[in-house]
Parts: sequence; C-alpha cells; structure tokens
Amino acid sequence: MTQGFAAVDVIRAKRDGHELSDAQIDWVIDAYTRGTVADEQMSALAMAILLNGMTPAEIARWTAAMIASGERLDLSGVGRPTVDKHSTGGVGDKITLPLAPLVASFGVAVPQLSGRGLGHTGGTLDKLEAIPGFRTRLGADEFADQLRTVGAAVCAASDALAPADRKLYALRDVTGTVESIPLIASSIMSKKIAEGTGALVLDVKVGSGAFMKDVGSARELARTMVELGGAAGVRTVALLTDMSVPLGLAVGNGIEVAESVQVLAGGGPADVVELTLALAREMLAAAGLPDADPEGALATGKAMDAWRAMVVAQGGDPDAPLPTPKEVELLRAESSGVVAGLDAYGVGVAAWRAGAGRARKEDPVSAAAGVLLHRRPGEWVERGDVLAELRADDPARIPAALADLRAAVTVADAAPERPPLVIDRIA
Amino acid sequence: MTQGFAAVDVIRAKRDGHELSDAQIDWVIDAYTRGTVADEQMSALAMAILLNGMTPAEIARWTAAMIASGERLDLSGVGRPTVDKHSTGGVGDKITLPLAPLVASFGVAVPQLSGRGLGHTGGTLDKLEAIPGFRTRLGADEFADQLRTVGAAVCAASDALAPADRKLYALRDVTGTVESIPLIASSIMSKKIAEGTGALVLDVKVGSGAFMKDVGSARELARTMVELGGAAGVRTVALLTDMSVPLGLAVGNGIEVAESVQVLAGGGPADVVELTLALAREMLAAAGLPDADPEGALATGKAMDAWRAMVVAQGGDPDAPLPTPKEVELLRAESSGVVAGLDAYGVGVAAWRAGAGRARKEDPVSAAAGVLLHRRPGEWVERGDVLAELRADDPARIPAALADLRAAVTVADAAPERPPLVIDRIA
Repeated sequence: MTQGFAAVDVIRAKRDGHELSDAQIDWVIDAYTRGTVADEQMSALAMAILLNGMTPAEIARWTAAMIASGERLDLSGVGRPTVDKHSTGGVGDKITLPLAPLVASFGVAVPQLSGRGLGHTGGTLDKLEAIPGFRTRLGADEFADQLRTVGAAVCAASDALAPADRKLYALRDVTGTVESIPLIASSIMSKKIAEGTGALVLDVKVGSGAFMKDVGSARELARTMVELGGAAGVRTVALLTDMSVPLGLAVGNGIEVAESVQVLAGGGPADVVELTLALAREMLAAAGLPDADPEGALATGKAMDAWRAMVVAQGGDPDAPLPTPKEVELLRAESSGVVAGLDAYGVGVAAWRAGAGRARKEDPVSAAAGVLLHRRPGEWVERGDVLAELRADDPARIPAALADLRAAVTVADAAPERPPLVIDRIA
Repeated sequence: MTQGFAAVDVIRAKRDGHELSDAQIDWVIDAYTRGTVADEQMSALAMAILLNGMTPAEIARWTAAMIASGERLDLSGVGRPTVDKHSTGGVGDKITLPLAPLVASFGVAVPQLSGRGLGHTGGTLDKLEAIPGFRTRLGADEFADQLRTVGAAVCAASDALAPADRKLYALRDVTGTVESIPLIASSIMSKKIAEGTGALVLDVKVGSGAFMKDVGSARELARTMVELGGAAGVRTVALLTDMSVPLGLAVGNGIEVAESVQVLAGGGPADVVELTLALAREMLAAAGLPDADPEGALATGKAMDAWRAMVVAQGGDPDAPLPTPKEVELLRAESSGVVAGLDAYGVGVAAWRAGAGRARKEDPVSAAAGVLLHRRPGEWVERGDVLAELRADDPARIPAALADLRAAVTVADAAPERPPLVIDRIA
C-alpha cells in the first residue's frame, strides 16, 4: 500500500515481540525524520519498544540510524585529543561547569553539546546563561575554534546533529515513553557519537533524583551505552554515581554557577569536588594522560584560568555579579537532631517550582531561583536552625515549593548509612 | 502542569500495569474528543492498553465514556421492539442484507448503523451502494420514520454518535493498535449502545478471514461484549461463527447483493441461509417472538417484500440490473481432486486487490469487482474445471489478485473435517 515498509507492519512486529530487521529500523527512523511516519505511529512504536524491549543488535542499529539522520561532526582538525562527558541528569548536577575547563587545562578538548532542563533536573545551558552575556549558541566554526584555542566549549547542539533523536525525544516526553533503557541509551549515544568526540565518560546517576531509581537498571543503561560507544569507535567509560541526595549545596541556575566557581577556586562542597575529580581522572586517562593531576589544577588556579577563558570566549563576563532573587524564604528545623534524609527528587521539584526549571519546553527559567542547602545529611541541627533557603523571583511560587522542600528534609535521632558517591565503574 | 489529569500520568499508569480510575478514563476520553489529548498521546495509551490489557471495570467505563462523548439515540417512538445485529467482519459476510428485512417482516425494527470496508473485509454500506440509487446517508428523522414504517433501515452512523470512538478507530487503524479485545469490544458496543437498540445479536467471527484467529480470543471478545451490553441495559447474545472459509460463493459488492436476493427468494448457498436463519431466530427471540418462523418468511416472499420496501425507502431500485465488470478471469483447477482448502483471508485479499475494497479510507470501491466462487470445500473437481472467477474493472488489478486467489484454493485427495458454521452461543 505504501512504498518501503508500512509503518503499521513495523509497529506490529515490535508489538508482537519480534526483533526488527536492520532495514525496518533504517526505514522507520528515516521516514519519521522526513515526516512520512507520523508522530502517532512513532509514539505507538516507542511504547511497544518500552514494554517489549530491544535486542543489543536492534539498539545498535537504532542508534546508527539516528546518527545517519543528520551530520556527524569531524573534530580531527582541533589538534587536541577530544573527550566529552555526559550525565544522565540529577539534582544540583553542575559538574560540567568545573569539569570541562579543568580537563581542558591539560590541553585536552572537551566538546560539550548540552541540553536544557525539563522537569525536576536542571540543564547545563540554563545554568551557564545565568552568567551575564554568556552565549550558548555557537556556530560550527566558532565551536571548533574555541576547542582549538580554549579547549572547553559548552553550547547547544546544532539542529543538524541527529535530528531524528531531537524529534523523538520531544515526542517521548509527552507520550510517557521516556523510561526505556534502549531509547535512553540510543538517544544519548546518537548525539554524543554525532558530535565527533574521540572518547566519552558517562556519569550514570542512580537514586530518587535520577531517571534510574535502582542500581540494576542504572548498570544496564551504563553497559548498553558503553557497548554502543565502543561499537561506534568512541572509547566509552561509565561511572555509576549516587543521586539519592542533591550534589553540593546549590540547586538552581545562578547559585550552581557560584558553587562551581568555588570548586574552581579550590574550595566548594566535598562531594562536588570528589565527583569532579573522579570524572576528570577518567577523561584525562581516556585522552592519554593517566598521570595528570587534576587536584593540583584546582589548587593552583590553572583550571580557573581555563574557566575564565571559556566564559570570555562565549561572550560572558566572569566577574559580573550573578542574579539575586527577589524573595528568600528560610526553612528551619522543627526539632533538634541529625539530618537523616535529603531527598534529591523532592529538592529538585522544590527548585523547579521556585522557578529554576520549566514545565514546557518554551517556558523561560529564572536565573536566581532555586534551593540553597545549609545542611547535609549526617549534620547535627538545633531546633530553629536554618536547614535551607528557598529563592524565587515570584512570591506566588514560594508556598508550594516550600512544602515540597519541607517534605524532602528529615531530621531524626540518627542518619542511615549512605552509599558511596561513586558506586561502580563500567568499561 | 495542566488542569485535570496530565495525559502523561494516565499513559504511565497503564504502561506500568495499573488500573485506570473512572475519573482518569472519563478525563482522557473527553480530552481526546476535544483535542486536548493529542493523537500521539492516545496512540501510546492504546498500545499500552493492547499490551497490558484492561479490567472489566475499566472496559465498562471506557465504553461509557465513549458513549458520553456524543448523543445516545432514543428509539422509543418507533413503536416496535428494536433489535440490531453486529458482525465483527468477515469475507463474503453479506448476512445483514437478507437478515434485516427478514426480521423486520415480523414487525420488529432493525436499526442498522453500518460501516464501510477497510482492508480485506467488505462493508455493508459499500455493498448496498452497488444498488443504483441506494442512499446510505439518512437523517435522524428519516431513519426513525423508516424504522416505524418499513422496520429495516441500514445506513451510515451519524457523526454525533460516539465521536470519541470514530476518532480512536481511525487512529488505531494506522498505529498497529487494532487487535486489542478491550478496544475492539468498547468500540463496537459504544456505537451499538449509542444507536439506541433495545437488544443486540453479535456475530463474532473466528478463523483466517476474521480479526480473531482462534476460538479462545473470539470467545473472550464475545463474553466482553455480552457483559457490556447487559450492563448498559441492552439484551445481548453472541454467536461464534466460522470464518475460515468465505460465506457463500460471492465476495464483492454487487455480487453479494445478488446472492442476498437469492436467499430472500428462497434459494442461495446453504451456509448463507443457515447463518441468516440462526441470527434471525436469536433476534426474533430477543424481540419477544421466540416462535416466529423465519424459514417460512424466506419461502413465502414475506422477507423479500420487506427488502424491496427497504431498498425503495432508501432511494434504490430493487429491479435495476447490478453493475457488471469490464474484466473476468477464470481460475481453473490444475489437477483433479477435492477442494480441500478455500482460505477466507486469501480470497478476501484477492477481492480487495481486484477493487472490491479500499486501501485508504478515502479510496472509492468498485461495485462490480470481486471473486465469484464456483466450488466450495469438499466438492470434487476435474483438472481444468473452473474453481472461481475474478472480476475487475481495471485489468491492471488482475495479475496480483489472481495470484492471491490461486494461493487461497487447495485441491487434494481428501478434504479435512470442517468446523460447524455456528461454533458457540454466548448469552
């Protein structure tokens, strides 16, 4: 009835538990990119994939087809080894901000094509745009030039990279088909492979604030992505890291920039420093520098120099004051005790409600809104002590955000044992 | 983020195997009808329903919500008991044509709101439109008047009846989500309950030419529909009938009208007569006439009078010659033996390819195209005997249709045992 494969036949095959052929996958991704396969057909297929799964061969072909839907960048002219990092997303995860300049300060190029936040996790581009003047749209030549000269460049992906993924990602978001390991893995890896990086370090988050709530599924996602990278010639390593509590003390756009600058200045919260260093060591090793000393680069200001160079190259003023909120509300301890729980998801939702995130793709975000934690799990508090502050531009956002924040913090007689920050390494 | 239930939450609930609440079902059907829930969201939900199923309570509420999306006709002014019949669709299934006037000839009203064919099964409206002048669009008053005076009326359903089902049915057709018992049952029953009939007899087909290929799933579909009818106050009975071979000898629009007229004249193929009488007895019993003699009504011409009155009332000329095809190709036996197989699906596809059916909703159908069988399973043929004739208006359609037809007929040393025409009765 139609040329090639009818979309319904492909949907039915997956619905009935069959493996899709290479030709079926190539056809459906290409036809969807061109608009021959309609959104309502792709969403039915995505639901069938979510419920019936895909074999490793199907995932590899699906990823290749999404890469083939657009351009694949060639960064060989950059003249430095290229290593990128990708996080599956968490609360307070500002690690890219100190990490990219830190790694770049060793002569490595970090070609970071990042995204915006949607839902309770923040987006790296939203955070950087809190810096007055910072531009997150770079042309292809500008991007390559900056990698050559500064080493680190963090910007929005061009529409020419994996357009099939761009379209499918937006569709999955509104059709309840996000939580599929094959679809998550192929989405991430198609973009990262298309961006042309030579090596990749993945930060796969696990816990309440992450997409993967348990270690088993996080490990499966990590293994799937490591295999996809290897098969495409991109050396790929994954760390499984804890996201049951927020990273650091700052959750929000401007305040996460400020916390990142503290880390680059040799300070900052211990967990942010620890994860930044762990990922930096993986990236430097992947770039052929296993003996580099990232801790030293934070201490000496070498990483800070690279940060300032990156911000300036992208039009930002590294010395400009960050935006301040119109409203600040304090959350105080209602009893004395130990901070036992600090739920990452709850804190993320509170920051989102305060204005740090968006409900729809087209919504603006507030640079000043968010949550600044004053205490971390395991710390002792007296009744009336400030546990956290909530920041917002719009006072109407305070009450609901405060309720979420209050529910996310537990004070008790003792704190439970916490998992290590880096749970596992998969290579 | 949106008012009421977010569509994604409803999709996720069904995706994760939960039972949808009444409020969720009411909201999603209403929002889909109004366009607030998008096609790509409903198709993902339909796939989740197909794969994860629905409970009886969910199916009942889903059906009620689809009825509530439009009008429910009130046929109490007709002044006769009302009984309708619905077939789940088969090859050569022209039973409505002799059945509706036969039952009406006993003073019963048969309010048949029918559909058009899509795929390999024909549609009653397409068949009736082969009669010169026959109108299948009747206004609500015209429909009620004809039920009052003639008793039988067969026409297209108004757009005001179950608009949610109309929209969802078209969506399922292109998204591989047709083959779900909850969705099939709720689709059929929402339309039939909304049309206002007091009783309903279901002909649930099973076999290669039907949607349900095995008795187990056909029985489940029948039970689901009988329960839905009873819960809505419509007395409902179902017959499970064989659709592994076509019904009768004619498969096509005009030739099925001709075969129906043979039955009304007291002749016609034995299987068509048997099924017409079995369904007529059920309908007459449901209308309070358990002792009526439908066989006599065929023999005496009483049913034929009702047919002629119905055709005339809808603008048709019962004496006008039916359309003849431009091309006729004969299929001859390649060896002598017994007709062992006559695959309903294969014959249906051959007739569809010859022009009797449509590939897309907006395609026209040929009134003259189809397959006229000369032999039935169990009959002896000599090499060179005509097995069937293929009829088409467009000679280009002959070769592919003939290949399908040839593959559908098997001649062997002996014919296998065949199932009874009426396999089971569910009430």
